Amino acid sequence: MNEAFMREAIALSIEKMEAGEGGPFGAVVVKDGEIVGRGWNRVTSANDPTAHAEVMAIRDACQTLDTFHLSGCELYASCEPCPMCLAAIYWARLDKLYYAATRADAADAGFDDAFLYQEVSKDWENRELPAGQLLADEARNAFAAWKQKADRTPY
Amino acid sequence: MNEAFMREAIALSIEKMEAGEGGPFGAVVVKDGEIVGRGWNRVTSANDPTAHAEVMAIRDACQTLDTFHLSGCELYASCEPCPMCLAAIYWARLDKLYYAATRADAADAGFDDAFLYQEVSKDWENRELPAGQLLADEARNAFAAWKQKADRTPY
Repeated sequence: MNEAFMREAIALSIEKMEAGEGGPFGAVVVKDGEIVGRGWNRVTSANDPTAHAEVMAIRDACQTLDTFHLSGCELYASCEPCPMCLAAIYWARLDKLYYAATRADAADAGFDDAFLYQEVSKDWENRELPAGQLLADEARNAFAAWKQKADRTPY
Repeated sequence: MNEAFMREAIALSIEKMEAGEGGPFGAVVVKDGEIVGRGWNRVTSANDPTAHAEVMAIRDACQTLDTFHLSGCELYASCEPCPMCLAAIYWARLDKLYYAATRADAADAGFDDAFLYQEVSKDWENRELPAGQLLADEARNAFAAWKQKADRTPY
């Protein structure tokens, strides 16, 4: 744990928000005591609803390190992550997460993700998002083809 | 519901996987009967653990439509989404999701996201991801600054 890294994440959350990039969120990825990735919310400026600070920092670090796995790295986020970012943190295999403000703080500023944690935890019958299934058999052909590939990369 | 759109998502899942782009997953975003975004798994080829098919299709559609909200659009995904993609679908405000293969089919091919649904549903004390909190007061300054901005964009 290093307060300087969190202060960098917080500084990004304020500077980039003031610059019109998006909401007040920043994050950095640290490996071996050095920042290898920086991210800040760019949802509105980049027209990308997935451009949350944590996702952007993960993508940046992966480019820096030329990898799709960030094991050995830690993420410092200015705020507790939403379910999308939390899942991204797991997929990226980060060793540890540090966060500063809480989801309750974010909700108080208008960024409430409680509904999303609830929705992810439900099954389709109870979710608010309308969903339907079709052509399952045809889609399974892709998995069959994957299993026959000799050079498939596990991830 | 239109089978042709799902067949395009499935075709992407196979063609792009065979081309070495990543895992066997494809997705398209449809608005007013036309495909406005295409995505496929690029985790390994793009070194981006967030480059799942659904996320890529959402990003592509947002660029096409010059917006960060996809209300009025539907997503066709070759497989039931993981928690990261499901949350992205909510943030993008898509009207509806259609999927083909299920999470069980994906797990059978080595893409098991059950642990992730479980982790997202827990609180920090019970999650496997180590996490810590620091500098909450400093981070809250970003939210205070956000609330004082006259031109803040809600999203």
